Amino acid sequence: MPKILTDNETVEQHLVKCRALDAADPLACIRDEFVLPEGRLYLDGNSLGAMPKRAVAQVAKMMEEEWGRGQVTSWTQADWFDLPTSLGDRIGGLIGAGPGQVVATDTISANLFKAVCASVRLQKGRVKLVSDRANFPADLYILQGIRDLLPEIEIKLIGRDGTLAELVDERTIAVVLTQVDFRDGACLDMVEVTRIVQAKGALMIWDLAHSAGAVSVALDACGVDFAVGCTYKYLNAGPGAPAFLYVARSLQSKAISPIYGWIGHEDPFSFSPEYLPTGSVRRFLSGTPAILSYIPLKASLEIWESVTLADVWHKRDQLTALFIEAVQFFDPSGMLRLASPREPALRGSQVALRHPSGLAIMRALIARGVVGDFRAPDILRFGFTPLTLSYEEVWRAASMLGEVLATEEWRKMSNAADGAVT
Amino acid sequence: MPKILTDNETVEQHLVKCRALDAADPLACIRDEFVLPEGRLYLDGNSLGAMPKRAVAQVAKMMEEEWGRGQVTSWTQADWFDLPTSLGDRIGGLIGAGPGQVVATDTISANLFKAVCASVRLQKGRVKLVSDRANFPADLYILQGIRDLLPEIEIKLIGRDGTLAELVDERTIAVVLTQVDFRDGACLDMVEVTRIVQAKGALMIWDLAHSAGAVSVALDACGVDFAVGCTYKYLNAGPGAPAFLYVARSLQSKAISPIYGWIGHEDPFSFSPEYLPTGSVRRFLSGTPAILSYIPLKASLEIWESVTLADVWHKRDQLTALFIEAVQFFDPSGMLRLASPREPALRGSQVALRHPSGLAIMRALIARGVVGDFRAPDILRFGFTPLTLSYEEVWRAASMLGEVLATEEWRKMSNAADGAVT
Repeated sequence: MPKILTDNETVEQHLVKCRALDAADPLACIRDEFVLPEGRLYLDGNSLGAMPKRAVAQVAKMMEEEWGRGQVTSWTQADWFDLPTSLGDRIGGLIGAGPGQVVATDTISANLFKAVCASVRLQKGRVKLVSDRANFPADLYILQGIRDLLPEIEIKLIGRDGTLAELVDERTIAVVLTQVDFRDGACLDMVEVTRIVQAKGALMIWDLAHSAGAVSVALDACGVDFAVGCTYKYLNAGPGAPAFLYVARSLQSKAISPIYGWIGHEDPFSFSPEYLPTGSVRRFLSGTPAILSYIPLKASLEIWESVTLADVWHKRDQLTALFIEAVQFFDPSGMLRLASPREPALRGSQVALRHPSGLAIMRALIARGVVGDFRAPDILRFGFTPLTLSYEEVWRAASMLGEVLATEEWRKMSNAADGAVT
Repeated sequence: MPKILTDNETVEQHLVKCRALDAADPLACIRDEFVLPEGRLYLDGNSLGAMPKRAVAQVAKMMEEEWGRGQVTSWTQADWFDLPTSLGDRIGGLIGAGPGQVVATDTISANLFKAVCASVRLQKGRVKLVSDRANFPADLYILQGIRDLLPEIEIKLIGRDGTLAELVDERTIAVVLTQVDFRDGACLDMVEVTRIVQAKGALMIWDLAHSAGAVSVALDACGVDFAVGCTYKYLNAGPGAPAFLYVARSLQSKAISPIYGWIGHEDPFSFSPEYLPTGSVRRFLSGTPAILSYIPLKASLEIWESVTLADVWHKRDQLTALFIEAVQFFDPSGMLRLASPREPALRGSQVALRHPSGLAIMRALIARGVVGDFRAPDILRFGFTPLTLSYEEVWRAASMLGEVLATEEWRKMSNAADGAVT
């Protein structure tokens, strides 16, 4: 990718360039769909996405009309029962999954638990779960819980026990990996990794927490077995909005959730005393869905469906590249080290910078209204959400970062990890 | 309990009596707190509770201020992190649980799964899970899922394999029972059943789906081990609002959830690769909480905390007794048979009536705006929510039921179970 900024130009010339990029941006008008607080540059949409304005009215309408007036009849008349699959299908459209393979439900952790337990039962005789030592710790915890529940299970970790190719063998149940690293944004090659894993008869389970809405994902085309992800980051569905679970169609008649949920029964209202899972992906629903939490997801998906994904991926590459170049411009002596891959194709929609006093610097930045976050030991993490960020904002964020470094104002901030950064 | 209606009085005299009861009702003013649609007599609050009016504004406020403006900072600044435990404590106040023992989270099914798996690990060497054949099928499904996941586990059911006293022995891990039967409202004696179970060293797990907000529950005083329940029925927290899980304080250092959730880690933001459960009941949280769904629960708890529970239990007894007497009055030939216990102390907050064409009758009633529900094969089920129902409404509902029978208008309705009733 060619550089965005031209060498040897002034601050003003760079700013003009950024404004020109905004003027030509096909996604620029989409910003109006979101609540974007004045005086804040929000580079933490990879932690919690900005709120779609329309979500407020849609939630109020649902509450007043469906819950308030419709009461219990809304389970059928407002299609509450179908929200996990109807919205699941629409999430599927953003991650390369054909209809009937995605449910929106529960949390990533619970969905991963279900997918791994289902894998254990599908792969009788195999005992090994493989992940990466650098995987998101929450995913490792889920594997540890399953190991402690099922005594025959063992966990092997890439980077401690060996490499992926060494670890995957005929004893491997499944491999669980997060596609985009939560720290540095490095993005794994889904085609290649899935191929290596499945060549040994192991199942491939992807965590798309930092992928959905951030990178182009083609679950069906890659032949992935299971995938999990959340909707509260890039997909703007709100704090703790339903996570999702993808179960490849080919597995659906055999894969079974360990949590036999009544709503995934073949005939939920027969009140049969024996569980009989329905044939579809609904069998992975664990209980009564949290209806209210689905409404902002529905609102957000309307917006996501109104944009061209190729525009999103292009703008992601441009925004992240611009930020990297701008940081170089404002930090010419290189106090900050780039932790993310320099090649856009190898990174997600975030940029990580290292500094020994990273936490203090992030706190100083937040005090100036530039919100990113921090991951121990030394990573300043910035998320770039093409639907809500402008080029000029990215430029200004880098400029503020430069000022925080130049003025050394971060030295007044604590660098001690005493709770959440924000 | 003395009869409410006086024998040999007229319809008008009975109605005057009901209005007098309303005039003297200390809970009458609470009705104003809820959206109660015109032209409907809602006797299905045991399926989905009416909506607190204040919930709409509180949800809008949370969305605009906390998500919209606060964005990610609200996790700490709006105390999102603490909602599962702070609201859990407040639910505890309604079910006789001291602080620090209840989390509001997930679904009943998921919480039961966690409690039973935790029990399996606590009770090494024991292999038997005991429940009731007539238990709510969703609870039986959860046990079946655990049996299919853990090959050593067996399930024994009261009413098929024997009686409670026969089935509970030194091989029993835990007994799972629903306190108030979902069909007929019969209420088990929590003190006595818990005593029998624990005398054999088994753990007692209660499902309070039809108890919380419906009957007086004293979890701590009864020495219960685990309990689960929902908040969308009598507690008015909305469709699929967070369920709850009670873990007795004495078990909290030993009991461990099978779903190792990052939010239940001792130090969630250390991102340690090893799961270390925190010492509190938070260790039973499975993932990022669905924040939006907690807001109506908070709104509803404010209302619940403004009433005297003794008033609620008294009005429950009166409403259910009035309905039974009124049905007798309007159905003197006894076409409907009472399926619920006649003694108020033995029933929950619902009344079940049997009729071979019960489904058609319920459909005819719903067509008249009296909303109850139906449970196969022949049960008309009516829920009585003291916070939202008046005595006069209960009287009018019974009157309409009498008219549906007298006019035989139900014969125009289908009695075939082709999906949900409502």
